[in-house]
Amino acid sequence: MKTPADPQFADRIRDSFARQKAMALIGARLATVVPGMVEVALPFRDDLTQQKGFVHGGIIGMIADNACGYAAYSLMPADCTLVTAEYKINLLASATLSLVARGEVVKAGRTLTVARAEVYAVDGTHIATMQQTLMMLPGRSDHRE
Amino acid sequence: MKTPADPQFADRIRDSFARQKAMALIGARLATVVPGMVEVALPFRDDLTQQKGFVHGGIIGMIADNACGYAAYSLMPADCTLVTAEYKINLLASATLSLVARGEVVKAGRTLTVARAEVYAVDGTHIATMQQTLMMLPGRSDHRE
Amino acid sequence: MKTPADPQFADRIRDSFARQKAMALIGARLATVVPGMVEVALPFRDDLTQQKGFVHGGIIGMIADNACGYAAYSLMPADCTLVTAEYKINLLASATLSLVARGEVVKAGRTLTVARAEVYAVDGTHIATMQQTLMMLPGRSDHRE
Amino acid sequence: MKTPADPQFADRIRDSFARQKAMALIGARLATVVPGMVEVALPFRDDLTQQKGFVHGGIIGMIADNACGYAAYSLMPADCTLVTAEYKINLLASATLSLVARGEVVKAGRTLTVARAEVYAVDGTHIATMQQTLMMLPGRSDHRE
Repeated sequence: MKTPADPQFADRIRDSFARQKAMALIGARLATVVPGMVEVALPFRDDLTQQKGFVHGGIIGMIADNACGYAAYSLMPADCTLVTAEYKINLLASATLSLVARGEVVKAGRTLTVARAEVYAVDGTHIATMQQTLMMLPGRSDHRE
Repeated sequence: MKTPADPQFADRIRDSFARQKAMALIGARLATVVPGMVEVALPFRDDLTQQKGFVHGGIIGMIADNACGYAAYSLMPADCTLVTAEYKINLLASATLSLVARGEVVKAGRTLTVARAEVYAVDGTHIATMQQTLMMLPGRSDHRE
Repeated sequence: MKTPADPQFADRIRDSFARQKAMALIGARLATVVPGMVEVALPFRDDLTQQKGFVHGGIIGMIADNACGYAAYSLMPADCTLVTAEYKINLLASATLSLVARGEVVKAGRTLTVARAEVYAVDGTHIATMQQTLMMLPGRSDHRE
Repeated sequence: MKTPADPQFADRIRDSFARQKAMALIGARLATVVPGMVEVALPFRDDLTQQKGFVHGGIIGMIADNACGYAAYSLMPADCTLVTAEYKINLLASATLSLVARGEVVKAGRTLTVARAEVYAVDGTHIATMQQTLMMLPGRSDHRE
């Protein structure tokens, strides 16, 4: 397990996640928060689906994006925020069940962090894999400005 | 403008989009459908935002994903469906306004199509750019099975 | 360890790699070939560098690309070839030493395979991480046509 | 055409490119340098090929990487260097001819620049498309340290 720069990282992340109205909209919740690893859980709902009844790939991207972002944020100092510079996701299987996205830090650099997320269905099916780049903004608030 | 394989492509796309409950959830609508190019519009709503009040990057990914997907689908024959194999998105600016994602086909191959989407805010700000790979599934239904 | 479809997969891969003149040009060699995992080694050479004396990012991409490709190929049947549809690579640290790229299969689908590569320097520095999509072409030769 | 921060940008780029030994190894040359757009030309050579006689995808990645990088560098101030954070490339067609990679800046931010490259064969075939993220390192030399 990696060493967090801010001992209050878990509170900071739970507070930030709770302010994400988009997560409330899709019903996602923060499941695990440890240094360098965060899991986001998404119960299946019919209103999250695309034309064939599978969870929309963009919704899968949303929880993987957040899992990567908060994994990165867990290792950052208290007085900063971060932005997602970019991500790439491969969709591996159709999703018709509840999902968990596990994000982990690959490399925490001074400015850029690289993270990865794996999304699994509750039956163990590997649904998606994401590689993401985030940029820390030191001295900037994580709240509305 | 490219030549569609199916003259009814626009009806087929509008019907498919209408069955995407996830698009209704976020309030996205199909704005433009021409061969090889599709635009998806997303009015700003506060419940689409992340912790700083900007539209969630995953939501931006959702409309860009759909714009690419339906641009690809517009050039495919009637009796097929398609899956998104993967996409990569760069987030270029924070979004606090209504958005439009324009998807365009870069290369329509026999099995794989490569598409790109640009997302703009209504004030002209370039919000995101996506590069996507889709796979055609010939003879397969675009409906629930 | 995964089960190969072709028991002669290792010979097939060594033969294919040996026909890659671009690998001879940069001095890369096949180090490990097991089902679902392939390592490509690249001794440091000054003529592989960019303007600051680090191994060129594109050269790092070449060995990661090959490690992913042959990892994918190791699980495919004898009478096929494959193409790289796309890859995404994050460069994590500057490289001034000999490198090893380890490619592993994430998901081997009927048509598409998703693979990943990690590139390490001989001193253990994590240099790069790649996520790649490959397409199998059944019944097609892996030789010049 | 965009406005360069450094009027000597073209000399700076030609000098940097000339120090890239990896470009000499593969025979690539700088063809066009204007603000925000750079073209890299690669004459076909048999020793650049993979097992089927096509130009290696990693070699295509190398020239696209450089075209993006120097397009980004053309808009940066004189006293900086830059690193490629990551890139994603889709390979669209097999390459058996000389190539040109055209890199263009999509967004030049304070720290990060997003660029894109299109690679064409001399017969007009669209060979590849790349999306790339670069990070400026202000006050750092572009030479060996």
